[in-house]
Amino acid sequence: MPEKLKPWTLLDQSLLQQTRIFRLNAERWRSPRTGQEHVFTNVAAPSWVNVVALDTQDRMILVRQFRFGTRAFTLEVPGGMCDPNEAPVDSAIRELREETGYVGTRVTDLGYCEPNPAIFDNRAYMYLIEGCEKVGDLLLDAGEDIEVVPTPVDEVMQMVVTGEIAHALVAVALQRFDLHRRGLLRLSASTLPNAAKLGTKP
Amino acid sequence: MPEKLKPWTLLDQSLLQQTRIFRLNAERWRSPRTGQEHVFTNVAAPSWVNVVALDTQDRMILVRQFRFGTRAFTLEVPGGMCDPNEAPVDSAIRELREETGYVGTRVTDLGYCEPNPAIFDNRAYMYLIEGCEKVGDLLLDAGEDIEVVPTPVDEVMQMVVTGEIAHALVAVALQRFDLHRRGLLRLSASTLPNAAKLGTKP
Repeated sequence: MPEKLKPWTLLDQSLLQQTRIFRLNAERWRSPRTGQEHVFTNVAAPSWVNVVALDTQDRMILVRQFRFGTRAFTLEVPGGMCDPNEAPVDSAIRELREETGYVGTRVTDLGYCEPNPAIFDNRAYMYLIEGCEKVGDLLLDAGEDIEVVPTPVDEVMQMVVTGEIAHALVAVALQRFDLHRRGLLRLSASTLPNAAKLGTKP
Repeated sequence: MPEKLKPWTLLDQSLLQQTRIFRLNAERWRSPRTGQEHVFTNVAAPSWVNVVALDTQDRMILVRQFRFGTRAFTLEVPGGMCDPNEAPVDSAIRELREETGYVGTRVTDLGYCEPNPAIFDNRAYMYLIEGCEKVGDLLLDAGEDIEVVPTPVDEVMQMVVTGEIAHALVAVALQRFDLHRRGLLRLSASTLPNAAKLGTKP
Protein backbone atom coordinates (compact mmCIF):
# COMPACT_ATOMS: atom_id res chain seq x y z
CA MET A 1 0.00 0.00 0.00
CA PRO A 2 1.18 3.50 -0.75
CA GLU A 3 2.48 5.52 2.15
CA LYS A 4 2.08 8.95 0.64
CA LEU A 5 -0.16 8.62 -2.40
CA LYS A 6 -3.90 9.18 -2.39
CA PRO A 7 -6.26 7.23 -4.68
CA TRP A 8 -7.47 8.61 -7.99
CA THR A 9 -11.21 9.02 -8.58
CA LEU A 10 -12.88 7.42 -11.61
CA LEU A 11 -15.38 9.88 -13.12
CA ASP A 12 -16.69 7.94 -16.12
CA GLN A 13 -15.92 5.38 -18.80
CA SER A 14 -16.76 5.09 -22.49
CA LEU A 15 -16.16 2.31 -24.99
CA LEU A 16 -13.83 3.33 -27.83
CA GLN A 17 -13.55 0.02 -29.62
CA GLN A 18 -14.59 -3.59 -29.19
CA THR A 19 -12.38 -6.11 -30.99
CA ARG A 20 -12.56 -9.89 -31.09
CA ILE A 21 -10.16 -10.17 -28.15
CA PHE A 22 -10.41 -6.97 -26.10
CA ARG A 23 -12.30 -3.75 -25.33
CA LEU A 24 -10.57 -0.38 -25.60
CA ASN A 25 -12.01 2.09 -23.07
CA ALA A 26 -11.49 5.79 -22.42
CA GLU A 27 -11.76 6.68 -18.73
CA ARG A 28 -11.81 10.08 -17.08
CA TRP A 29 -10.01 10.22 -13.71
CA ARG A 30 -9.43 13.04 -11.20
CA SER A 31 -5.88 13.46 -9.93
CA PRO A 32 -5.55 13.51 -6.13
CA ARG A 33 -2.46 15.71 -6.48
CA THR A 34 -3.71 18.47 -8.78
CA GLY A 35 -7.51 18.03 -8.74
CA GLN A 36 -7.39 18.09 -12.55
CA GLU A 37 -9.21 15.60 -14.78
CA HIS A 38 -7.28 13.32 -17.13
CA VAL A 39 -8.42 10.81 -19.75
CA PHE A 40 -6.56 7.48 -19.85
CA THR A 41 -7.24 4.67 -22.31
CA ASN A 42 -7.19 1.12 -21.06
CA VAL A 43 -7.78 -2.34 -22.42
CA ALA A 44 -10.11 -4.90 -20.84
CA ALA A 45 -9.02 -8.37 -21.88
CA PRO A 46 -9.62 -11.97 -20.75
CA SER A 47 -6.99 -13.73 -18.67
CA TRP A 48 -4.10 -15.24 -20.57
CA VAL A 49 -2.13 -18.41 -19.85
CA ASN A 50 1.39 -19.52 -20.70
CA VAL A 51 2.61 -23.08 -20.31
CA VAL A 52 6.13 -24.30 -19.63
CA ALA A 53 5.70 -27.88 -20.91
CA LEU A 54 8.42 -30.51 -20.42
CA ASP A 55 8.50 -33.92 -22.07
CA THR A 56 10.07 -37.00 -20.51
CA GLN A 57 13.49 -36.23 -22.07
CA ASP A 58 14.00 -32.79 -20.46
CA ARG A 59 12.92 -30.95 -23.58
CA MET A 60 10.59 -27.95 -23.50
CA ILE A 61 7.73 -27.98 -26.01
CA LEU A 62 7.95 -24.64 -27.83
CA VAL A 63 5.83 -23.25 -30.66
CA ARG A 64 6.94 -21.15 -33.59
CA GLN A 65 4.35 -18.87 -35.16
CA PHE A 66 3.89 -15.61 -37.00
CA ARG A 67 2.98 -12.72 -34.71
CA PHE A 68 0.93 -9.89 -36.12
CA GLY A 69 2.12 -7.16 -33.73
CA THR A 70 5.81 -7.35 -34.64
CA ARG A 71 5.13 -9.00 -38.05
CA ALA A 72 7.73 -11.63 -37.35
CA PHE A 73 8.08 -15.30 -36.40
CA THR A 74 8.63 -15.98 -32.70
CA LEU A 75 9.59 -19.02 -30.67
CA GLU A 76 7.38 -19.13 -27.58
CA VAL A 77 5.92 -21.37 -24.95
CA PRO A 78 2.36 -22.45 -25.81
CA GLY A 79 -0.44 -20.31 -24.45
CA GLY A 80 -3.53 -18.34 -25.20
CA MET A 81 -6.67 -16.80 -23.80
CA CYS A 82 -8.92 -18.29 -21.15
CA ASP A 83 -12.40 -19.04 -22.43
CA PRO A 84 -15.29 -17.46 -20.46
CA ASN A 85 -15.71 -19.22 -17.09
CA GLU A 86 -12.70 -21.47 -17.77
CA ALA A 87 -10.25 -21.92 -14.89
CA PRO A 88 -6.75 -20.83 -15.97
CA VAL A 89 -5.28 -24.28 -15.26
CA ASP A 90 -7.83 -25.81 -17.64
CA SER A 91 -6.97 -23.20 -20.28
CA ALA A 92 -3.32 -24.15 -19.89
CA ILE A 93 -4.02 -27.86 -20.39
CA ARG A 94 -6.32 -27.10 -23.34
CA GLU A 95 -3.95 -24.68 -25.09
CA LEU A 96 -1.05 -27.11 -24.71
CA ARG A 97 -3.12 -29.89 -26.29
CA GLU A 98 -4.49 -27.69 -29.10
CA GLU A 99 -1.26 -25.92 -30.04
CA THR A 100 1.15 -28.84 -29.70
CA GLY A 101 -0.72 -32.16 -29.53
CA TYR A 102 0.94 -32.88 -26.16
CA VAL A 103 -0.63 -33.74 -22.81
CA GLY A 104 1.16 -34.06 -19.47
CA THR A 105 0.88 -35.90 -16.18
CA ARG A 106 1.73 -33.24 -13.55
CA VAL A 107 0.92 -29.54 -13.29
CA THR A 108 2.49 -26.86 -11.08
CA ASP A 109 1.04 -23.37 -10.63
CA LEU A 110 3.89 -20.88 -11.24
CA GLY A 111 1.81 -17.83 -10.32
CA TYR A 112 0.73 -14.93 -12.49
CA CYS A 113 2.00 -11.67 -13.88
CA GLU A 114 0.26 -8.52 -15.05
CA PRO A 115 1.05 -8.06 -18.75
CA ASN A 116 0.93 -4.27 -18.53
CA PRO A 117 -0.92 -2.75 -15.56
CA ALA A 118 -0.64 0.74 -17.08
CA ILE A 119 -2.90 -0.30 -19.96
CA PHE A 120 -4.31 -3.83 -19.52
CA ASP A 121 -6.61 -4.98 -16.71
CA ASN A 122 -5.78 -8.66 -17.03
CA ARG A 123 -3.41 -11.29 -15.69
CA ALA A 124 -1.26 -13.90 -17.43
CA TYR A 125 -1.24 -17.16 -15.45
CA MET A 126 1.74 -19.47 -15.78
CA TYR A 127 1.90 -23.24 -15.37
CA LEU A 128 4.55 -25.92 -15.54
CA ILE A 129 3.22 -29.14 -17.07
CA GLU A 130 5.57 -32.13 -16.87
CA GLY A 131 5.62 -35.64 -18.25
CA CYS A 132 4.32 -34.44 -21.60
CA GLU A 133 3.81 -36.85 -24.48
CA LYS A 134 2.38 -36.33 -27.94
CA VAL A 135 -1.07 -37.87 -28.19
CA GLY A 136 -2.42 -36.45 -31.43
CA ASP A 137 -2.41 -33.76 -34.07
CA LEU A 138 -2.68 -30.05 -33.45
CA LEU A 139 -6.18 -28.59 -33.16
CA LEU A 140 -5.67 -25.21 -34.79
CA ASP A 141 -8.10 -22.38 -35.40
CA ALA A 142 -8.20 -21.23 -39.02
CA GLY A 143 -6.26 -18.11 -37.96
CA GLU A 144 -3.36 -20.14 -36.52
CA ASP A 145 -0.35 -21.78 -38.16
CA ILE A 146 2.07 -23.34 -35.70
CA GLU A 147 5.25 -25.40 -35.79
CA VAL A 148 6.01 -27.45 -32.67
CA VAL A 149 9.67 -27.26 -31.63
CA PRO A 150 10.76 -29.53 -28.73
CA THR A 151 13.98 -27.92 -27.47
CA PRO A 152 16.45 -28.98 -24.73
CA VAL A 153 15.69 -26.97 -21.57
CA ASP A 154 19.23 -25.58 -21.26
CA GLU A 155 19.04 -24.32 -24.83
CA VAL A 156 15.76 -22.53 -24.11
CA MET A 157 17.19 -20.84 -21.02
CA GLN A 158 20.19 -19.74 -23.11
CA MET A 159 17.79 -18.13 -25.62
CA VAL A 160 16.53 -15.91 -22.79
CA VAL A 161 20.10 -14.87 -22.01
CA THR A 162 20.91 -14.09 -25.66
CA GLY A 163 17.60 -12.30 -26.20
CA GLU A 164 16.55 -14.72 -28.96
CA ILE A 165 13.42 -15.21 -26.86
CA ALA A 166 12.33 -11.58 -26.44
CA HIS A 167 8.58 -11.98 -25.78
CA ALA A 168 8.16 -10.43 -22.32
CA LEU A 169 5.42 -12.79 -21.12
CA VAL A 170 7.40 -15.83 -22.25
CA ALA A 171 10.51 -14.47 -20.53
CA VAL A 172 8.53 -14.08 -17.29
CA ALA A 173 7.17 -17.65 -17.55
CA LEU A 174 10.73 -18.91 -18.02
CA GLN A 175 11.93 -16.72 -15.14
CA ARG A 176 9.35 -18.34 -12.84
CA PHE A 177 10.21 -21.80 -14.13
CA ASP A 178 13.89 -21.05 -13.42
CA LEU A 179 13.11 -19.81 -9.89
CA HIS A 180 11.07 -22.99 -9.31
CA ARG A 181 13.87 -25.18 -10.72
CA ARG A 182 16.31 -23.52 -8.32
CA GLY A 183 13.96 -24.33 -5.41
CA LEU A 184 13.08 -20.68 -4.68
CA LEU A 185 9.30 -20.81 -5.15
CA ARG A 186 8.50 -23.78 -2.84
CA LEU A 187 5.68 -25.09 -5.02
CA SER A 188 4.31 -28.59 -5.32
CA ALA A 189 2.90 -30.36 -8.35
CA SER A 190 -0.57 -31.85 -8.71
CA THR A 191 -1.08 -35.08 -10.62
CA LEU A 192 -3.32 -34.65 -13.62
CA PRO A 193 -6.13 -37.23 -13.58
CA ASN A 194 -6.62 -39.23 -16.72
CA ALA A 195 -3.93 -37.26 -18.48
CA ALA A 196 -4.30 -38.81 -21.90
CA LYS A 197 -7.86 -37.54 -22.23
CA LEU A 198 -7.15 -34.02 -21.02
CA GLY A 199 -7.13 -31.07 -23.33
CA THR A 200 -9.35 -32.58 -25.98
CA LYS A 201 -12.35 -30.59 -27.11
CA PRO A 202 -15.64 -32.01 -25.85
CA MET B 1 13.82 -18.71 -38.91
CA PRO B 2 10.92 -21.10 -39.32
CA GLU B 3 11.69 -24.46 -40.87
CA LYS B 4 8.19 -25.38 -41.95
CA LEU B 5 6.07 -22.23 -41.78
CA LYS B 6 5.42 -19.93 -44.73
CA PRO B 7 4.94 -16.17 -44.30
CA TRP B 8 1.50 -14.57 -44.07
CA THR B 9 0.53 -11.91 -46.61
CA LEU B 10 -0.68 -8.48 -45.47
CA LEU B 11 -3.64 -7.40 -47.60
CA ASP B 12 -4.56 -4.03 -46.08
CA GLN B 13 -4.63 -1.93 -42.92
CA SER B 14 -7.11 0.52 -41.46
CA LEU B 15 -6.93 2.79 -38.43
CA LEU B 16 -9.48 1.92 -35.75
CA GLN B 17 -8.46 4.37 -33.07
CA GLN B 18 -5.72 6.89 -32.38
CA THR B 19 -5.08 7.57 -28.69
CA ARG B 20 -2.55 9.83 -27.02
CA ILE B 21 -0.06 6.97 -26.72
CA PHE B 22 -0.82 4.41 -29.44
CA ARG B 23 -2.67 3.60 -32.70
CA LEU B 24 -5.07 0.66 -32.88
CA ASN B 25 -5.09 -0.86 -36.38
CA ALA B 26 -7.16 -3.56 -38.05
CA GLU B 27 -5.16 -5.58 -40.57
CA ARG B 28 -6.34 -8.18 -43.04
CA TRP B 29 -3.90 -11.05 -43.60
CA ARG B 30 -4.02 -14.15 -45.80
CA SER B 31 -3.13 -17.45 -44.14
CA PRO B 32 -0.42 -19.45 -45.95
CA ARG B 33 -1.96 -22.67 -44.58
CA THR B 34 -5.61 -22.25 -45.50
CA GLY B 35 -5.60 -19.40 -48.05
CA GLN B 36 -8.34 -17.74 -45.98
CA GLU B 37 -8.34 -14.08 -44.95
CA HIS B 38 -8.27 -13.07 -41.27
CA VAL B 39 -8.49 -9.71 -39.57
CA PHE B 40 -6.12 -9.11 -36.65
CA THR B 41 -5.97 -5.97 -34.56
CA ASN B 42 -2.61 -4.61 -33.54
CA VAL B 43 -1.22 -1.66 -31.65
CA ALA B 44 1.51 0.64 -32.97
CA ALA B 45 3.27 2.27 -30.04
CA PRO B 46 6.51 4.15 -29.41
CA SER B 47 9.44 2.34 -27.81
CA TRP B 48 9.35 2.05 -24.05
CA VAL B 49 12.23 2.09 -21.56
CA ASN B 50 12.65 0.64 -18.08
CA VAL B 51 15.50 1.58 -15.77
CA VAL B 52 17.11 -0.49 -13.05
CA ALA B 53 18.66 2.35 -11.03
CA LEU B 54 21.04 1.69 -8.14
CA ASP B 55 22.23 4.27 -5.66
CA THR B 56 25.60 4.17 -3.93
CA GLN B 57 24.23 2.10 -1.02
CA ASP B 58 23.02 -0.90 -3.09
CA ARG B 59 19.43 0.27 -3.07
CA MET B 60 17.23 0.20 -6.14
CA ILE B 61 15.23 3.35 -6.86
CA LEU B 62 11.62 2.20 -7.30
CA VAL B 63 8.48 4.22 -7.94
CA ARG B 64 5.01 3.65 -6.58
CA GLN B 65 2.11 4.91 -8.67
CA PHE B 66 -1.52 4.28 -9.54
CA ARG B 67 -1.95 2.25 -12.72
CA PHE B 68 -5.10 2.77 -14.75
CA GLY B 69 -5.19 -0.67 -16.41
CA THR B 70 -5.42 -2.70 -13.20
CA ARG B 71 -6.76 0.26 -11.13
CA ALA B 72 -4.22 -0.43 -8.43
CA PHE B 73 -0.98 0.91 -7.01
CA THR B 74 2.19 -0.79 -8.23
CA LEU B 75 5.82 -0.73 -7.21
CA GLU B 76 7.94 -0.56 -10.37
CA VAL B 77 11.26 0.48 -11.78
CA PRO B 78 11.12 3.95 -13.34
CA GLY B 79 10.40 4.08 -17.06
CA GLY B 80 8.25 5.51 -19.78
CA MET B 81 7.94 6.20 -23.47
CA CYS B 82 10.69 7.35 -25.78
CA ASP B 83 10.03 10.77 -27.26
CA PRO B 84 10.12 10.98 -31.08
CA ASN B 85 13.71 10.70 -32.33
CA GLU B 86 15.02 10.16 -28.81
CA ALA B 87 17.58 7.37 -28.35
CA PRO B 88 16.33 4.84 -25.78
CA VAL B 89 19.34 5.40 -23.52
CA ASP B 90 18.51 9.11 -23.40
CA SER B 91 14.88 8.29 -22.60
CA ALA B 92 16.08 6.09 -19.75
CA ILE B 93 18.25 8.86 -18.28
CA ARG B 94 15.44 11.41 -18.72
CA GLU B 95 12.69 9.22 -17.22
CA LEU B 96 14.87 8.37 -14.22
CA ARG B 97 15.51 12.06 -13.59
CA GLU B 98 11.87 13.11 -14.11
CA GLU B 99 10.22 10.32 -12.12
CA THR B 100 12.69 10.11 -9.23
CA GLY B 101 14.98 13.16 -9.13
CA TYR B 102 18.00 10.84 -9.38
CA VAL B 103 20.87 10.86 -11.88
CA GLY B 104 23.63 8.25 -12.20
CA THR B 105 27.25 7.95 -13.29
CA ARG B 106 27.35 4.68 -15.29
CA VAL B 107 24.89 3.08 -17.71
CA THR B 108 24.73 -0.51 -18.98
CA ASP B 109 22.52 -1.64 -21.86
CA LEU B 110 20.57 -4.71 -20.65
CA GLY B 111 18.94 -5.36 -24.03
CA TYR B 112 15.29 -5.20 -24.98
CA CYS B 113 12.14 -7.27 -24.85
CA GLU B 114 8.98 -7.24 -26.93
CA PRO B 115 6.06 -6.34 -24.63
CA ASN B 116 3.59 -8.46 -26.59
CA PRO B 117 4.51 -9.38 -30.19
CA ALA B 118 1.01 -10.80 -30.79
CA ILE B 119 -0.50 -7.32 -30.41
CA PHE B 120 2.16 -4.60 -30.01
CA ASP B 121 4.79 -3.65 -32.60
CA ASN B 122 7.19 -2.06 -30.15
CA ARG B 123 10.16 -2.86 -27.94
CA ALA B 124 10.89 -2.11 -24.30
CA TYR B 125 14.56 -1.25 -23.80
CA MET B 126 16.16 -1.90 -20.43
CA TYR B 127 19.09 -0.13 -18.81
CA LEU B 128 21.04 -0.40 -15.60
CA ILE B 129 22.08 3.01 -14.26
CA GLU B 130 24.47 2.92 -11.30
CA GLY B 131 25.95 5.45 -8.92
CA CYS B 132 22.62 7.25 -8.64
CA GLU B 133 22.19 10.26 -6.39
CA LYS B 134 19.25 12.55 -5.84
CA VAL B 135 19.88 15.92 -7.46
CA GLY B 136 16.47 17.57 -7.36
CA ASP B 137 12.70 17.32 -7.21
CA LEU B 138 10.55 15.16 -9.45
CA LEU B 139 9.46 16.67 -12.77
CA LEU B 140 5.99 15.20 -13.12
CA ASP B 141 3.41 15.61 -15.82
CA ALA B 142 0.01 16.71 -14.51
CA GLY B 143 -1.25 13.14 -15.13
CA GLU B 144 1.42 11.58 -12.87
CA ASP B 145 1.61 11.16 -9.11
CA ILE B 146 4.64 9.21 -7.96
CA GLU B 147 6.26 8.17 -4.67
CA VAL B 148 9.97 7.35 -4.83
CA VAL B 149 10.87 4.22 -2.85
CA PRO B 150 14.60 3.38 -2.55
CA THR B 151 14.64 -0.34 -1.65
CA PRO B 152 17.51 -2.73 -0.85
CA VAL B 153 18.32 -4.77 -3.97
CA ASP B 154 17.86 -8.13 -2.26
CA GLU B 155 14.41 -7.06 -1.08
CA VAL B 156 13.44 -6.10 -4.64
CA MET B 157 14.57 -9.45 -6.02
CA GLN B 158 12.55 -11.18 -3.29
CA MET B 159 9.46 -9.23 -4.42
CA VAL B 160 9.83 -10.90 -7.83
CA VAL B 161 9.94 -14.31 -6.16
CA THR B 162 6.85 -13.62 -4.03
CA GLY B 163 4.98 -12.05 -6.94
CA GLU B 164 4.60 -8.73 -5.12
CA ILE B 165 6.19 -7.24 -8.24
CA ALA B 166 3.88 -8.68 -10.91
CA HIS B 167 4.35 -6.17 -13.76
CA ALA B 168 5.70 -8.32 -16.58
CA LEU B 169 7.99 -5.67 -18.08
CA VAL B 170 9.44 -4.84 -14.67
CA ALA B 171 9.99 -8.55 -13.99
CA VAL B 172 11.87 -8.88 -17.28
CA ALA B 173 14.06 -5.85 -16.47
CA LEU B 174 14.88 -7.41 -13.09
CA GLN B 175 15.51 -10.79 -14.76
CA ARG B 176 18.07 -9.17 -17.07
CA PHE B 177 19.63 -7.25 -14.17
CA ASP B 178 19.89 -10.55 -12.26
CA LEU B 179 21.50 -12.32 -15.24
CA HIS B 180 23.97 -9.42 -15.53
CA ARG B 181 24.68 -9.50 -11.80
CA ARG B 182 25.45 -13.23 -12.08
CA GLY B 183 27.91 -12.49 -14.91
CA LEU B 184 25.83 -14.22 -17.60
CA LEU B 185 25.29 -11.31 -19.99
CA ARG B 186 28.94 -10.19 -20.41
CA LEU B 187 28.08 -6.49 -20.68
CA SER B 188 30.19 -3.48 -19.89
CA ALA B 189 29.14 -0.13 -18.50
CA SER B 190 29.65 3.26 -20.12
CA THR B 191 30.50 6.27 -17.99
CA LEU B 192 27.89 8.99 -18.22
CA PRO B 193 29.48 12.33 -19.03
CA ASN B 194 28.60 15.24 -16.83
CA ALA B 195 26.18 13.09 -14.87
CA ALA B 196 24.82 15.77 -12.59
CA LYS B 197 23.41 17.72 -15.51
CA LEU B 198 21.85 14.76 -17.27
CA GLY B 199 18.16 14.18 -17.47
CA THR B 200 17.09 17.77 -16.94
CA LYS B 201 14.68 19.28 -19.41
CA PRO B 202 16.33 21.78 -21.76
